[in-house]
Amino acid sequence: MGRDHGVVAIAGQIGVVASVALNLAALAFYLHGRIFGASAGEKEAGKKMKKAAAVAPSSGKPPVAPDSTINLDHGDPTMFETFWRGTMGEHATLVIPGWQTMSYFSDVSNLCWFLEPGFEREVRRLHRLVGNAAAEGYHVLVGTGSMQLFQAALYALSPPADAGPISVVSPVPFYSSYPAVTDFLKSRRYRWAGDANTFEGDEYIELVCSPSNPDGGIREAVLKSKSGKAIHDLAYYWPQYTPITQMLAHDVMLFTVSKCTGHAGTRIGWALVKDREVAKKMNMFLELNTIGVSKDSQLRAAKVLEAVADGYERQPADTTGDASLLFHYARRQMACRWRALRAAVAASGIFTLPDEVAGFCTFAKDTVSANPAFAWLRCDKEGVEDLEVFLREHKIITRSGTRFGADPKVVRISMVDTDEAFGIFVDRLAAMK
Amino acid sequence: MGRDHGVVAIAGQIGVVASVALNLAALAFYLHGRIFGASAGEKEAGKKMKKAAAVAPSSGKPPVAPDSTINLDHGDPTMFETFWRGTMGEHATLVIPGWQTMSYFSDVSNLCWFLEPGFEREVRRLHRLVGNAAAEGYHVLVGTGSMQLFQAALYALSPPADAGPISVVSPVPFYSSYPAVTDFLKSRRYRWAGDANTFEGDEYIELVCSPSNPDGGIREAVLKSKSGKAIHDLAYYWPQYTPITQMLAHDVMLFTVSKCTGHAGTRIGWALVKDREVAKKMNMFLELNTIGVSKDSQLRAAKVLEAVADGYERQPADTTGDASLLFHYARRQMACRWRALRAAVAASGIFTLPDEVAGFCTFAKDTVSANPAFAWLRCDKEGVEDLEVFLREHKIITRSGTRFGADPKVVRISMVDTDEAFGIFVDRLAAMK
Repeated sequence: MGRDHGVVAIAGQIGVVASVALNLAALAFYLHGRIFGASAGEKEAGKKMKKAAAVAPSSGKPPVAPDSTINLDHGDPTMFETFWRGTMGEHATLVIPGWQTMSYFSDVSNLCWFLEPGFEREVRRLHRLVGNAAAEGYHVLVGTGSMQLFQAALYALSPPADAGPISVVSPVPFYSSYPAVTDFLKSRRYRWAGDANTFEGDEYIELVCSPSNPDGGIREAVLKSKSGKAIHDLAYYWPQYTPITQMLAHDVMLFTVSKCTGHAGTRIGWALVKDREVAKKMNMFLELNTIGVSKDSQLRAAKVLEAVADGYERQPADTTGDASLLFHYARRQMACRWRALRAAVAASGIFTLPDEVAGFCTFAKDTVSANPAFAWLRCDKEGVEDLEVFLREHKIITRSGTRFGADPKVVRISMVDTDEAFGIFVDRLAAMK
Repeated sequence: MGRDHGVVAIAGQIGVVASVALNLAALAFYLHGRIFGASAGEKEAGKKMKKAAAVAPSSGKPPVAPDSTINLDHGDPTMFETFWRGTMGEHATLVIPGWQTMSYFSDVSNLCWFLEPGFEREVRRLHRLVGNAAAEGYHVLVGTGSMQLFQAALYALSPPADAGPISVVSPVPFYSSYPAVTDFLKSRRYRWAGDANTFEGDEYIELVCSPSNPDGGIREAVLKSKSGKAIHDLAYYWPQYTPITQMLAHDVMLFTVSKCTGHAGTRIGWALVKDREVAKKMNMFLELNTIGVSKDSQLRAAKVLEAVADGYERQPADTTGDASLLFHYARRQMACRWRALRAAVAASGIFTLPDEVAGFCTFAKDTVSANPAFAWLRCDKEGVEDLEVFLREHKIITRSGTRFGADPKVVRISMVDTDEAFGIFVDRLAAMK
């Protein structure tokens, strides 16, 4: 894996020391009050800390119980929370003083003038570490999630509007949001045109999602016209989901921290864009749509990506575990879940899943199996015409195949929810006959 | 002003104590290393703290010198930074642990399921404090800046697309971004139709920006058709810019922290929406456009708004100053700048400004003058046909009146940039003959 003990490695160790020191100071302050009895001022401070903890952040979907409805419709990556509550969590803590980053601008000399330099640096560093995509020579753009960048790419790649809307296509099964996001504003620049496999013509934008949402398959563009354009949605091209078999170098590549580190709530995605004019047009979209992107979330994403890379580049405290190695930790979790799901499907006997695939991962330096972020579950049982409805009767919320251009006997199921929700789901599935 | 000494007041004081205590711990840790000589681990921790401070956040536009080009094109509200570096700054510091707010969801029971409850609470509290808009009985939506919410409102208020695009209008001079943002995707749902004063027809969406960007005037809808719709852009309806003369209660009202507290980089706006169906459609836009809004920025905005309201509701440490009273502090700054600008215009003799207006402010409980966030500067000098070009020759970047539907003898100039930039600007202006 190349656990480099150089400058970056030392910086990583220092980070943990600083972070732990600050936490110990806060802990000591708290314990002092608990054990020795607190002064009035300390008691008030303690109350405030509790109040802040009680009112500040939301916690996402409510916890589940064995008889709960289990919502696996969205790919809400709450599975990752356990990793960030562990060793590396403190390393990713962000502190923003009240006066910081108030300006609209981050770097007036950059084409993407609202891109935080620290975030760009960590994006490039992560791609060097993982080897999944070429960042060298590419422009980095930041978006409010990768779906905003997808729209920016449609805007940049579509011809001037008088030429009529260009066709936007993707092979079935395609990501269910593509049609709605392409069409909701009824643009004269572009329009959804469905399955790429049946498309005829030379002018189009093909959306290539690889590994595929919903079915996890590795995809390449199916259309080959010279004048056609492609947008590569690589949200799931990370080692926990699939072997990294090559360093991709497409014209427009989209990524998101949601699926890489699990921080969906930060709404930060990024694009690697080869052509400067395309990057400029995409940036124009981001200016007009939202006048840039949250700096607080960019700083947080930078901190989180820094923690991920530091975890690999420094000497881990516990050399046998994976508590500081995000992709190893998450791949182990995903592999465990896929074993559990395949066992449940075998126990039930009425479902099928895509075949397991494996490949040599240049990051893991080993042959590993793919563990997609979604299960593309099919039901062969007679009488079950609509699997989404059937599962909903068992209080499992999934997304129907019809939303992906496929048939209603198949559904997409999130594999990245909490341990509790996933456990109840597989238990229920195994019991269905 | 109602400086309440109740529960909220005490909470405010406690906040400062807790914050100061944590800072003292960090300071002690730092000083220990400086004064007593640090251990290797402590030295490393110190280095890391410096490294974090050096690399983490951007600082916006570069500093200016007396011969610099002064960019007052955007309303970049960096003027506010001095306030947040003062007494209240520490109260607004945000800490986010690595594991927090990872989910897409904030409150699944809310129509706006990605709205952080703490942010909504502080928005409602601030409107109660200032009295500028009715929040009671309104839905609160959060957006990536108020311009995203503007687009969400266009989407929600436009008819089904087959009815053809609805006309979007605003009286001249209108905010320069309205035409571009309305038209850049060439939607079949809505299209820019120019000056509301000359529009004929009953079906339209009128954009009412009050106080007006660019000229600071108080506006009401100019069109009165029963079937017409209005969007009220109230970004500048805060006490530092204009007397608060009434509590507004329009159907759709847009606000942004950028202009309220100066935190443009957080990209957080909010909408108060009366009708539930309109709020649902606006929310649908936000889902499709960016799958919600940065939680980190929502938490930060909540913290900043909390600090503003706490500053008014607790007993200020220094009862004579305004270091804890944002609106008083900012109004004083703005008034000072407007005096300096009017003096420079008088000294020059070739420019004119809109007349000063005043009114009774229900928040300040006094008659106060308006201090708009932009100066709408006109030049009567013969031979100056294009004021934007003329000022650019003097290395002052402004926005031409033509961008606002007005003539080229007028420009819009930001009044909310740094003290340094503003000072150089008025000095140069005074010297122009």
